Amino acid sequence: MMNDMVKRELEKNRVWFEDHLNSLCSSRPENIPPRLWESMTYSLQAGGKRLRPILCVKAAESVGGEKEKVLPMALALEMVHTASLIHDDLPAMDNDSLRRGKPTNHMIYGDALAILAGDALLAWAFEYSLKGLMDRGVPPSSIVQALSIFAQAVGPSGICGGQVLDTDPASFTSSLSFVANIALQKTAVLLQASLVTGAILGGASQEIAGAFGKYGRHLGLAFQIVDDILDVTSSPEELGKTPGKDAAQQKITFVTQFGLEEARKMALKESKEAAESLFMLGSSAVFFQKLALSLSKRSR
Amino acid sequence: MMNDMVKRELEKNRVWFEDHLNSLCSSRPENIPPRLWESMTYSLQAGGKRLRPILCVKAAESVGGEKEKVLPMALALEMVHTASLIHDDLPAMDNDSLRRGKPTNHMIYGDALAILAGDALLAWAFEYSLKGLMDRGVPPSSIVQALSIFAQAVGPSGICGGQVLDTDPASFTSSLSFVANIALQKTAVLLQASLVTGAILGGASQEIAGAFGKYGRHLGLAFQIVDDILDVTSSPEELGKTPGKDAAQQKITFVTQFGLEEARKMALKESKEAAESLFMLGSSAVFFQKLALSLSKRSR
Repeated sequence: MMNDMVKRELEKNRVWFEDHLNSLCSSRPENIPPRLWESMTYSLQAGGKRLRPILCVKAAESVGGEKEKVLPMALALEMVHTASLIHDDLPAMDNDSLRRGKPTNHMIYGDALAILAGDALLAWAFEYSLKGLMDRGVPPSSIVQALSIFAQAVGPSGICGGQVLDTDPASFTSSLSFVANIALQKTAVLLQASLVTGAILGGASQEIAGAFGKYGRHLGLAFQIVDDILDVTSSPEELGKTPGKDAAQQKITFVTQFGLEEARKMALKESKEAAESLFMLGSSAVFFQKLALSLSKRSR
Repeated sequence: MMNDMVKRELEKNRVWFEDHLNSLCSSRPENIPPRLWESMTYSLQAGGKRLRPILCVKAAESVGGEKEKVLPMALALEMVHTASLIHDDLPAMDNDSLRRGKPTNHMIYGDALAILAGDALLAWAFEYSLKGLMDRGVPPSSIVQALSIFAQAVGPSGICGGQVLDTDPASFTSSLSFVANIALQKTAVLLQASLVTGAILGGASQEIAGAFGKYGRHLGLAFQIVDDILDVTSSPEELGKTPGKDAAQQKITFVTQFGLEEARKMALKESKEAAESLFMLGSSAVFFQKLALSLSKRSR
């Protein structure tokens, strides 16, 4: 069960974020082809926990920053996350037809447009955040620092690399650290970047930004371990996507490597380490600490 | 025939750029999976005119900037251009097996890795240029301005949008401006961004940067018109890729819309307008002016 305070905070921020996202999606910029826009916004508006933008905004607030000011960064994080989901679902990759209970992008728009919508969202994330942060008067040096961390999380040593490790059989190794590397690159780096960019744009010191980085790493690992567990233990209704895909695709996961019981212990251990990473924040850390402990018990 | 001075300048800068590119590609950053790196660098090192990085560097030099300082931007432009070629060649898109006389990325690495290599190059362009320009002491405000223009050229209203117009039948219209819009978004915006980012990072005034933007727009249109012409008139050996694809795929091009003779006239007209756009640069503009006139006569 998720802690009530955490649940309330997540829901409040999800609604706030989705209001802004829906307003952004409601009017197409003139130069974007209508069909491309439709495909991009279909997936952007397909729901989800909105965890990355929420972490970004909460991190900014916890160090005294303003929510509205980091909004472009929060939107960029969700754009990139959405782009990676669209591409991961393609027939050439995970070949998934269901995501968050809805048909995946390529099922509706075809492979070509799904590829281009992913590319477009990836690039738009940079375009939108650069312009949005400038317009809000964020100092250029903070913008460059935050976007540099963001880009690193997205690129070949971040989620793109993680997806290769996850889908390319020739990259598989049997090393114990391999499954952790997948989790770090596939999931943890972007959660980490959400927190660290939020902290930096909110005005955090390097030390505090670093603590958020450590928290994000443990949170991301916990999150991915639970994801691997849920793929084995959930029904499609609970999960909102097709479970059992990891096994069907012979993926290397925390469950295949360590077994269900050990994986549960590992998730709890990472959650606890996440919670401890933010002790220097004092009472501002309570939400993040409770969140880490709740996430290890989530059911979707 | 290409003007000798232009030819020499292009070749000198191509060699300089490729030296840096090859040195970058020669050592894999630790966190990038080996197979992904192989796929990314295969396409990056597959040759080509390197026109975008050369335009960027020459624009910077023409306003008194240093070549070495804008190198990260030049590399980023080539990364994004390469990413777009990898995705355009995919079976779901143009389904091309030959590019610059070599097998296309997906022919060697498969569709999944080709999709991810394109994504990775797209994100790496931002990661690499942000860090590289910071390390070289470029003022953050110039970095933000240049990357903002770059991102816009890459995103949904830039080359991603152009590719949708080019490949998605549902986006086709018969309007006369449609073929020009494809050319602008597919080709001109990135050539434009190459010139404008180079000028900005080289220290140009807004007025000069604007002149480069105008030049790039005409140059890009001329370039695309000639591309459409060559697809009809060239052999595979001359072109280094498969000709006749436009007709086979029933694409709307300058040749299908206006005929070969009229298209030739249009290319020449755009080249001339390009050359005139830079009059305020005086003798620094000579290379660019001769280049524009040469490009309208290129044979590959």
